Amino acid sequence: MSKFLQKINSPQDLKSLSRENLPDLAAEIRDALLNTISKTGGHLGSNMGVVELTIALHYVYESPKDMFIWDVGHQTYVHKLLTGRRDRFHTLRQYEGLSGFTKREENEHDHWNCGHGGTSISAALAFAKARDLKKEDHNVLAIIGDGSMTAGMAFEGLNHTGHLQTDMVVVLNDNEMSISNNVGGMSAHLSQIMTGQVMTKIKREIDQLLLAIPGIGKDISRYAHKIDEAIKGVFIPGRLFEDLGFRYIGPIDGHNTDALIETFEAIKGLKGPTLVHVITRKGKGYKVAEEKADVWHGASPFDIETGVFHKKASNPNYTSVFAQALIDLAKEDETIIGITAAMPDGAGISKFGKEFPERTFDVGMAEQHAVDFAGAMALKGLRPVAAIYSTFLQRAYDQVVHDVCLMNIPVVFAMDRAGIVGEDGATHQGLYDIAYLRTLPNMVIMAPKDENEMRHMLKTAIYHNGPAALRYPRGAGLGVDLDPEIQEMEIGKGEVLKEGTDIALVAYGHMVRPAENVAKKLEEQGISVAVINARFVKPLDEELVLRYARATQCMVTLEEHSEQGGFGSAVLEALHKEPSDQAFQVKCIGVADIVVEHGAPALVRRDLKIDEEGLLETISQFYGQVMEMSLVSGMNHQNNGSKHSHPSNGAKETVKPTLRTA
Amino acid sequence: MSKFLQKINSPQDLKSLSRENLPDLAAEIRDALLNTISKTGGHLGSNMGVVELTIALHYVYESPKDMFIWDVGHQTYVHKLLTGRRDRFHTLRQYEGLSGFTKREENEHDHWNCGHGGTSISAALAFAKARDLKKEDHNVLAIIGDGSMTAGMAFEGLNHTGHLQTDMVVVLNDNEMSISNNVGGMSAHLSQIMTGQVMTKIKREIDQLLLAIPGIGKDISRYAHKIDEAIKGVFIPGRLFEDLGFRYIGPIDGHNTDALIETFEAIKGLKGPTLVHVITRKGKGYKVAEEKADVWHGASPFDIETGVFHKKASNPNYTSVFAQALIDLAKEDETIIGITAAMPDGAGISKFGKEFPERTFDVGMAEQHAVDFAGAMALKGLRPVAAIYSTFLQRAYDQVVHDVCLMNIPVVFAMDRAGIVGEDGATHQGLYDIAYLRTLPNMVIMAPKDENEMRHMLKTAIYHNGPAALRYPRGAGLGVDLDPEIQEMEIGKGEVLKEGTDIALVAYGHMVRPAENVAKKLEEQGISVAVINARFVKPLDEELVLRYARATQCMVTLEEHSEQGGFGSAVLEALHKEPSDQAFQVKCIGVADIVVEHGAPALVRRDLKIDEEGLLETISQFYGQVMEMSLVSGMNHQNNGSKHSHPSNGAKETVKPTLRTA
Repeated sequence: MSKFLQKINSPQDLKSLSRENLPDLAAEIRDALLNTISKTGGHLGSNMGVVELTIALHYVYESPKDMFIWDVGHQTYVHKLLTGRRDRFHTLRQYEGLSGFTKREENEHDHWNCGHGGTSISAALAFAKARDLKKEDHNVLAIIGDGSMTAGMAFEGLNHTGHLQTDMVVVLNDNEMSISNNVGGMSAHLSQIMTGQVMTKIKREIDQLLLAIPGIGKDISRYAHKIDEAIKGVFIPGRLFEDLGFRYIGPIDGHNTDALIETFEAIKGLKGPTLVHVITRKGKGYKVAEEKADVWHGASPFDIETGVFHKKASNPNYTSVFAQALIDLAKEDETIIGITAAMPDGAGISKFGKEFPERTFDVGMAEQHAVDFAGAMALKGLRPVAAIYSTFLQRAYDQVVHDVCLMNIPVVFAMDRAGIVGEDGATHQGLYDIAYLRTLPNMVIMAPKDENEMRHMLKTAIYHNGPAALRYPRGAGLGVDLDPEIQEMEIGKGEVLKEGTDIALVAYGHMVRPAENVAKKLEEQGISVAVINARFVKPLDEELVLRYARATQCMVTLEEHSEQGGFGSAVLEALHKEPSDQAFQVKCIGVADIVVEHGAPALVRRDLKIDEEGLLETISQFYGQVMEMSLVSGMNHQNNGSKHSHPSNGAKETVKPTLRTA
Repeated sequence: MSKFLQKINSPQDLKSLSRENLPDLAAEIRDALLNTISKTGGHLGSNMGVVELTIALHYVYESPKDMFIWDVGHQTYVHKLLTGRRDRFHTLRQYEGLSGFTKREENEHDHWNCGHGGTSISAALAFAKARDLKKEDHNVLAIIGDGSMTAGMAFEGLNHTGHLQTDMVVVLNDNEMSISNNVGGMSAHLSQIMTGQVMTKIKREIDQLLLAIPGIGKDISRYAHKIDEAIKGVFIPGRLFEDLGFRYIGPIDGHNTDALIETFEAIKGLKGPTLVHVITRKGKGYKVAEEKADVWHGASPFDIETGVFHKKASNPNYTSVFAQALIDLAKEDETIIGITAAMPDGAGISKFGKEFPERTFDVGMAEQHAVDFAGAMALKGLRPVAAIYSTFLQRAYDQVVHDVCLMNIPVVFAMDRAGIVGEDGATHQGLYDIAYLRTLPNMVIMAPKDENEMRHMLKTAIYHNGPAALRYPRGAGLGVDLDPEIQEMEIGKGEVLKEGTDIALVAYGHMVRPAENVAKKLEEQGISVAVINARFVKPLDEELVLRYARATQCMVTLEEHSEQGGFGSAVLEALHKEPSDQAFQVKCIGVADIVVEHGAPALVRRDLKIDEEGLLETISQFYGQVMEMSLVSGMNHQNNGSKHSHPSNGAKETVKPTLRTA
């Protein structure tokens, strides 16, 4: 099928093509992108937009010696196709397949893993500076989208680069759109460049100047062209970057391979920092994606001909239930504000924004600002809900500490995509939030067992008079019925879902359902299993946990979070607050201390042994160990008066603890 | 003494003064600042610099209805003097006294607590936007130093403000200096404004244009003034801010109360975002401080007449020992790089920079960039040491996760000022680092028991092939001898400092010495106490911890870190990895789950019960509980063969565990 692409196994092969063939190659690449992404899903729009840019970069530079630092890494599908990964491209974002982002471990042409935006300039500067210190000779280019430019750290990188005057190139891939419509003065500035407003203003002023000079005024039209030229010499666009110490080149048509190649050839030897401003169109070459760039940013599998996404029969997802609940609550309370940071669709805020445009703020890829913006709003008596993925809230950690928790400000953090995120992989896993939030004073942390409980928790969080974080997973809910009314819950109280005397399974969030299912399996083996929905990680229902630890042979905590410092640790801390005459057997199950890679969630969870099968195995084994030990040592776990033993060891003598029912 | 200041108990009193008296008031305020700071220590330079600015703001606006958002809050001593806190001003930064930063809890004129830089614009925008949503009518001003402007989040705030076009004012207090010399393109841009480079360049180009026009060339000098005026009309300075959507006003002489008052009066009714650029001089009015602005940024007590700091007889502090060790190691290894983020003196990097200027990078108040800059340097085979206070590393948390730990990059985080920081108070405490780092894959975390061990740990961290964090406290070391050679240590191995069979005290960092002292006290009571220096929080020496938990009646963990998710939790996690026939009695001592306020470290630690007295009390009580319980229940804690009992209960039958000696 493909005439050129099939021969390209490295950038070297690309260079053997003549420049006239490159547009045809671009067309073949677009076909390849559509063919794969329509099956695997992935970042369609941005990759369709950078086809010519990527070709031109590889045509001119010598990768991997010359280093391309892509920001964010999801715009690198074309780069992957041209750097020896064509044969594996169909495995994109699949389990054990190619990553959807840059990945050092995957290929020598990837130098920097980039899943979060705004990091490329810092990395490129360091690579360039290290090159100089080591007296090496190669080019370093950061290729950054205009969306990532709204991240404060991109500005920090520009600022430092301007200061150091290091030889490097920043390619600004300007598609006038980040994940959603771009935000901010930076964007307005770039638009100005395009519309020529700046030029017009300057020309008008100069015209007026000249008109005031005797002898010139009348003949001003004669000099118009000369004036234009002179102005251009001084007042090139992109002055914001010039102000920061960059040489500005552009804007360049990002779909014209000749223009791109000539530009890169021309700047190759330049000293100091250079910014090349390239204009591209998201989704270029696929009409439906060009027209609805936000919808086609991250596409699920679709039909190429019709542009219709394949429908998966599934329960409503957490995000949409969250969005509807927020809307319902906001109808009753006009102080509720929705805030997000360049993830309005993914975090459900765009739906809210349609109902309440005045109360909706998408601040761009600027989580730090989003959190402080929310904090100060709350101090003025409003009730801001900052909907930010678990992984991106990391970007605003200091603001959560310093500007929310220390001042005890009532901000709600709606942490979507907590836990395993699936195909996005390592950089997007939401595995650390419990640990990094739990250590902070004043913070309340909760996670619902299903989408219905999430609605009640959202209201609970909104009306709590201090910071509250609400954690829920990516994807479909459990399909449970939604209560007609949303009601506040008691903070710090867990729920007993099932009584039992041998094992107590204590879970929270979407590990509650697997815990219930595992309990059923264990019951079939004659083991009596209690199941607790902890609901709150902080404050933990310590009394409940302690009671069940005392009343059962052993306790197992279950969570989709790093094993270190998470909910399991909170339970251990609670059990050790006072000395105990009882040896508590507690197994803390979470996500192992490794980098968790991409793949379908079911496969990832299987490997981590946190799917039902893995959980059952771990818990059975642990329970077996405890039983064996108690037989060997004659140990009595119940010194507190409620003596009993394992069912298989003889008659139970259980004193049931006083329990609330679910 | 003071004629005007003594009558000012609120901003209202200030307004009753005539404008001619304000310079005299300014002089009185400078005297008051010198008198107090020379005794308490504090941020001298920045406050001496904003005397007139603060007077003018309070003279023109109606605080607290009009809201001043100060960034950072350490430039608010004058604001405190003018807002009813004059009588308590001598308690500045002292235990239970006035905070050295803005503090909502302290006064109605403080709206936003700001200890970390760069947050004011976000907060001010939210206050202004909330005002509009609530249809209120008042002014909001962010007052931000040029140092804080290098923080990415300040840019995020500017960007969003430019986008929303909300009515608010940003006062840029430009003293051409943040904590140390300012960094970056932004700074260069501001300097350009001052030196008129931009104007000169433009004029030259226009001259050339006019010279080329027949009939004008010869007479160009006649039009020079007219041209100047015309240029000024278009090409006002501060275009960077204009590009972001702000109206730019300035630069204004920040020591001229008349000019300031007239400016603020003039902009009071303006719509949209306005940036007022004010030039001030750090240390203004105190000659030594004007001349050495970096030294006098944060001053310790000093003699006003001579400008000599009072010498405290103390051991060399951790920072200076760190700096010397880094220099010593860098002499042997030219790949070692020193990086900091606007804290070169406080973090010891300025000393390093004098020896190795080419290998030293102060990136400005830009921790996010600093961490990624370090990460990419490491990928090029260099060995970067990022010296960032524990509290400021929070600002770069996502970068630590996403750009260092996930890629397993060998960056050293030298976390100075970990634990209780004393007079700086809540916003600067380093109390969360263990929890937020421990949960991340690949991270090694260590803390030295003294300044000598720190040197060995620094080398260990530098030559570890992955991320490593080194945590040490603010202030003086223990005065121990320094080993002639710096040597790598075995990662993940703790050290037994003292054998004992009743209690095991497991500490790390600067809690080791108090643990030793408490052990001595307990031994005097006939209790046998083991003392362990854990050295590594991650990887924890699990074998060692488990061995001592088994061999003693009870274990106590000691740390100067939040009680949640810290080292204590790591120990609990280790003890519960496998089922145990033994009920481990573990008391985790750390910093309570509260906001820890400012004051002399000894007093703060006393209140937190983490000084030696408090520790002794807690540990004695815990041990008493354990003993009592074992008597009541007849419980035997030692089911593992090494049976013994409390010395006071009879003869010991201890089987000593196999131990390494210290």
